[in-house]
Amino acid sequence: MQALRLNNGLSYCPDIAKPNVSADQALIRLSLAGICATDLELVKGYAGFTGILGHEFVGVVEAVDNPEHQQWLNRRVVGSINIGCNHCDACLKEGAEHCQNRKVLGIRGKDGVFAEYFSLPVANLYSVPDEVSDEAAVFTEPLAAAIRVVKQLESIAIKVIAVIGPGRLGLLIAQVLALAGYEVTVLGRSESSLALPRHWQLKTALIQDIADNCFECVVDASGQVSGFRQALRILRPRGILMLKSTFSTLEPVDLSKVVVAELTILGSRCGPFADALTLLKQQLIPIESLIDGRYHLNQGLAAFDHADQPGVRKILLHP
Amino acid sequence: MQALRLNNGLSYCPDIAKPNVSADQALIRLSLAGICATDLELVKGYAGFTGILGHEFVGVVEAVDNPEHQQWLNRRVVGSINIGCNHCDACLKEGAEHCQNRKVLGIRGKDGVFAEYFSLPVANLYSVPDEVSDEAAVFTEPLAAAIRVVKQLESIAIKVIAVIGPGRLGLLIAQVLALAGYEVTVLGRSESSLALPRHWQLKTALIQDIADNCFECVVDASGQVSGFRQALRILRPRGILMLKSTFSTLEPVDLSKVVVAELTILGSRCGPFADALTLLKQQLIPIESLIDGRYHLNQGLAAFDHADQPGVRKILLHP
Ligand SMILES: [Zn+2]
Ligand SMILES: [Zn+2]
Ligand SMILES: [Zn+2]
Ligand SMILES: [Zn+2]
Repeated sequence: MQALRLNNGLSYCPDIAKPNVSADQALIRLSLAGICATDLELVKGYAGFTGILGHEFVGVVEAVDNPEHQQWLNRRVVGSINIGCNHCDACLKEGAEHCQNRKVLGIRGKDGVFAEYFSLPVANLYSVPDEVSDEAAVFTEPLAAAIRVVKQLESIAIKVIAVIGPGRLGLLIAQVLALAGYEVTVLGRSESSLALPRHWQLKTALIQDIADNCFECVVDASGQVSGFRQALRILRPRGILMLKSTFSTLEPVDLSKVVVAELTILGSRCGPFADALTLLKQQLIPIESLIDGRYHLNQGLAAFDHADQPGVRKILLHP
Repeated sequence: MQALRLNNGLSYCPDIAKPNVSADQALIRLSLAGICATDLELVKGYAGFTGILGHEFVGVVEAVDNPEHQQWLNRRVVGSINIGCNHCDACLKEGAEHCQNRKVLGIRGKDGVFAEYFSLPVANLYSVPDEVSDEAAVFTEPLAAAIRVVKQLESIAIKVIAVIGPGRLGLLIAQVLALAGYEVTVLGRSESSLALPRHWQLKTALIQDIADNCFECVVDASGQVSGFRQALRILRPRGILMLKSTFSTLEPVDLSKVVVAELTILGSRCGPFADALTLLKQQLIPIESLIDGRYHLNQGLAAFDHADQPGVRKILLHP
């Protein structure tokens, strides 16, 4: 089968063996996959992963090992990406994504989805409703991550939120917050980056025009240390910073305002796939406008070049 | 009067004019003052303050301007250090310590307490109960800051807490948490730094002996970037880091675990003076064992040298 493998650089491999399907796993035929920022970082050497890349997908179950899982055959599915050890404290309390010994699809110890076929435990799978196109379903994982923000804010009395970073994740977060009734402003560094959020009828502003200390809650989805610094700058005393992106640690950050203004920083990561699929079914988010390009697996390297250009939101791959 | 003034370096001034007392202020005669880490940083040039240093004090009210405040005359008092503008949003909502235009006793725009006399608004004063000695009362401000930690944790279901940094603030935090029923471990980098917490019958450990991901809640009172890094390291997924100390920002910090492990960071600053005085009245904390030296104002420079030695917890000044 065809696949994009990472091993001292990314390469297109036209003829790799199909994966074996072990107990409780499903063999999935890829329909559509998405390239995300993590993939770009993995190619740059972050985390030292070797193997087939990719973790955002929609596909069809082609085989299962366990006869009890036969009802999954031929279903259109998306899947969560963490595979825990299932017996450590973290697996039992906080979930597989916090397991120290976890494998992560296309990221850590487990071949990913930029291939004609890949495997995943049946426990990780979610059926895609008929109303949700492949082009929408491939956004389930980032949309779930956006929904996680709303879940974390549920118990906090806040109405007004700024989202820094008009990229794919920032837009999804802003849209999900707006649908949940928050008054949201998307903040970016250039007018051009704010065109799509305006098209989505979200309120926007240039971050450099925002005064110090004026937002009670800021979501940083910028993926940049500069975004994190701006978030600290514009937060009111006792404000909440929802940190949704990791960034290079080469540049120092002044954390003294966290103490002096008694800020709260909430780290936020994976979210509920079932809720994301329900939201996609309602078709309230013009999610397909995030797609900037579509490539065949054998054009994978060109796809990665495109995905790495500034301002590009989502590049898809198909077999 | 005598005073320690900061103006391109600290100097002892034997003959400065007594401060004038304007409306709603009290003139206070110093009994005892404490040198804290902020004072040491101010001497090193942080924040560019010029004027009489000092903000931790106990004293006696010698004069008031407003006849309505006569009941304060001759009272033994401590006082909160922030003087807000009283009409901005922050003053009305979050309190004077978050006012952008605030003055801060001995730190910003207002002469401090390392002097025979100083002034403070009567609204900032608290009467010291007879049961509380001057040597205990001078710890009201740091003890209040320690109590703030307990207040912030009140609504969170946590029983086990590590406190990083066996300095004065860390010890007060650990003791206050222990009195509130938490199972507390004080973590330090050397056996010698853990002697006093052991004497206070607190559980202790060397931080380098603590495994990764094993505490649900960590208070960083180390005042060092290394302490903050250790706090991140030993926190469990979804754990809480109470950040109680600022530190030099020259060294970069990797914040990716905040996102990946969905940590919460809570900044924590000033606390309730009234609660601190109540706790001091109960005499449950052997607070005077934090005192490492006592100097006359005219030996102020030697006092600062002493306070700047590693492992020294509290140096007092008296007129
Ligand atoms: Zn991703
Ligand atoms: Zn596990
Ligand atoms: Zn202080
Ligand atoms: Zn104010």
